Amino acid sequence: MSHMTSAPDVSNAAKAPLEGLRIIDLTQVVVGPYATQFLADFGAEVIKIEHPTGDLARWIGGKSTTPGMAAKYLHLNRNKKSIALDLKKPGAAEALKKLIVTADVVIHNMRPSAAARLGLSAQDLLELKPDLIYCSVVGFGQGGRYKDKPAYDSIIQGASGLAAINNGGDGEPRFVPMVIADRTVGIMVANTILMGVVQRLRHGGPQIIEVPMFESMTAFVLAEHLFLKTFDPPLGETGDSRLLNPNSRPIRTADGYICVTANTDEQVFAMFDAMGRSDLRTDPRFAEKRARFENIGEMFRIRNEIFASRTTAQWLEILEAADVPAMPLHTLDSVLDDPHLADTRLFQPIDHPTEGKIINLRNPIQFSSYEPSLKWPAPLIGQHSIELLRSVGVSDQDIEAMLESGATVNHC
Amino acid sequence: MSHMTSAPDVSNAAKAPLEGLRIIDLTQVVVGPYATQFLADFGAEVIKIEHPTGDLARWIGGKSTTPGMAAKYLHLNRNKKSIALDLKKPGAAEALKKLIVTADVVIHNMRPSAAARLGLSAQDLLELKPDLIYCSVVGFGQGGRYKDKPAYDSIIQGASGLAAINNGGDGEPRFVPMVIADRTVGIMVANTILMGVVQRLRHGGPQIIEVPMFESMTAFVLAEHLFLKTFDPPLGETGDSRLLNPNSRPIRTADGYICVTANTDEQVFAMFDAMGRSDLRTDPRFAEKRARFENIGEMFRIRNEIFASRTTAQWLEILEAADVPAMPLHTLDSVLDDPHLADTRLFQPIDHPTEGKIINLRNPIQFSSYEPSLKWPAPLIGQHSIELLRSVGVSDQDIEAMLESGATVNHC
Repeated sequence: MSHMTSAPDVSNAAKAPLEGLRIIDLTQVVVGPYATQFLADFGAEVIKIEHPTGDLARWIGGKSTTPGMAAKYLHLNRNKKSIALDLKKPGAAEALKKLIVTADVVIHNMRPSAAARLGLSAQDLLELKPDLIYCSVVGFGQGGRYKDKPAYDSIIQGASGLAAINNGGDGEPRFVPMVIADRTVGIMVANTILMGVVQRLRHGGPQIIEVPMFESMTAFVLAEHLFLKTFDPPLGETGDSRLLNPNSRPIRTADGYICVTANTDEQVFAMFDAMGRSDLRTDPRFAEKRARFENIGEMFRIRNEIFASRTTAQWLEILEAADVPAMPLHTLDSVLDDPHLADTRLFQPIDHPTEGKIINLRNPIQFSSYEPSLKWPAPLIGQHSIELLRSVGVSDQDIEAMLESGATVNHC
Repeated sequence: MSHMTSAPDVSNAAKAPLEGLRIIDLTQVVVGPYATQFLADFGAEVIKIEHPTGDLARWIGGKSTTPGMAAKYLHLNRNKKSIALDLKKPGAAEALKKLIVTADVVIHNMRPSAAARLGLSAQDLLELKPDLIYCSVVGFGQGGRYKDKPAYDSIIQGASGLAAINNGGDGEPRFVPMVIADRTVGIMVANTILMGVVQRLRHGGPQIIEVPMFESMTAFVLAEHLFLKTFDPPLGETGDSRLLNPNSRPIRTADGYICVTANTDEQVFAMFDAMGRSDLRTDPRFAEKRARFENIGEMFRIRNEIFASRTTAQWLEILEAADVPAMPLHTLDSVLDDPHLADTRLFQPIDHPTEGKIINLRNPIQFSSYEPSLKWPAPLIGQHSIELLRSVGVSDQDIEAMLESGATVNHC
């Protein structure tokens, strides 16, 4: 049963912000699971509906200690419950509907036509639960001609313009080497569910939400790079020339790479001094913000040349004394040894019931009344099947039949 | 005055989800403004506090029709009000405090020591407004040794490991050519404010929230790439080899580039057939998921070679018939002509009072009871100074004095 009410309960301010919010999560792989993990970290009860063969991320995310527990899956599904349901087998669809009646939110990322075929359209579910928050993550807005196209991260990276500009080195387009469209839109999805919750607490439900990946990611990219074509007629070209300049990059030092930011006059002049080029302070190309913007490539080029002469540690010392923001470049391995991250305990060693000792990436956001914590690590397929089926009144006899037919499974 | 109450108001379900939520926004440039624009799009009243010289993004975001209205700023500040306040001049700090008393949320991204010097620590503000949601976006968690370091997007990209892996072409680390750490964390910030709002509606305030950029972005990157070092002892190296493979990229065709995704057996086999290489279906390197993961580089290499033989349009036709997900690569310019985005009206021509006709990037997320809309375009510096000062009881005489001393300005 949903425990979410709108009655203020000031006596209990230390509760997790989303405690009692029940989310039925029909998504898999990245975009949906990333969204719901954010909510689970802050107390939402996320019930992950999995086909008995499991979320694809269990399998395409690399080796694991036991099958189907890839690292990628582990980092996307902590604090969730898993119930395995094969919706094409007897009893499963009925059980899902019983769960939905108890829920505040349903989220899926099926194509809308597929959801409808399974009886999971917004209309279907609002009949079951009239104040439901129904969130569908779609590849493409349902008001446009691509509405039935399938979407995947790399397709959205390519279609949004992101891969075209990520062309350092040789001018060839490249994906950002992360499932970054899925992850970015995933955080937006968490936002929209939360706004649906706020709306429902204040004005009641239901709410039907559509988050289109292509449009969302294109707006994300073009808010940066529509640039001078924002104006009509255009004041120039698309693309922020400062960010796209090939010399805007981690700077090679005598023994590694350093990242330096100097935006204000103060920072830039201090950097010139530190470089032994105080003369550039009065150089008309660099003496003020607007001129520097026009000549940014040249400024980066001069900077990058001079930085090759000293080690990273030497530059860090010089720049710190000059109050110019700088940090060394981390690799995926060196960041694991960063002393600040040890102080703030980002890497949290935990025991997983089947995977042994693993490193959890702690959610680093802090609330004064709540610190997001690990309630339990990512579940096995159907780890909570029995408990959840019982909780909505499915009899032990029926559960037995579902286990036998493969309508559910129960790994633990 | 804040109009946010917890009383359900079912009669008015068509209201914007965040209507009546008042946010005092002391942030500038990207991370904070991106967060609050998301909230403003959904009805929050965002009051942007600017120094009379204006948000830095007004100036470093490229040319504009009138000074201080760069495209980058325009895409980060629609639907907000601007009040100009120089907190070091008489009357300004008092006016800010009067505004804070009326607010639900205060957000800033100053270093905590700087906020304290200005009398804007959480403690200071909770004395003014005991149920405030106070959100500070910091570069580095305050529990660690970098707590006083300044943070900028490129420094966080470098420190999180993202720049190190974005090394296509020549192996040299490169920034993703977007202010992507700021933007990604910005969406997370919107999430946390919304969770604070949910918490306050249910259990009352206050709430003090800290969002550390370094930790948040590192967790974002490593959820993908901690990979086999998630396990202790490690099962292998960091880095998802599939995403980091140099052949995992937009594919060159005879006349351009295409992006193709084939994950499931069905998709992969259909792609092999479409490539005229049905023999690969039974090749032990590619016949099943696990084997393909091990040999993904080789599969990508074969694919990329064959795709050079036909045009993008030819491949799209072949792949669509085979039900293999594919789309052409868009550039920053070609995406502006995408017909689906015309259908869904992502690019919204609007009139800006000083900039003339500009293209607004519509927020593409849809609620059944609300479509995020443009209330007004990004404001001039202090466009709402007079209105807001009057609203909290500053007399016309005092406003006059503030205008004279430069404690506020009033562009319109």
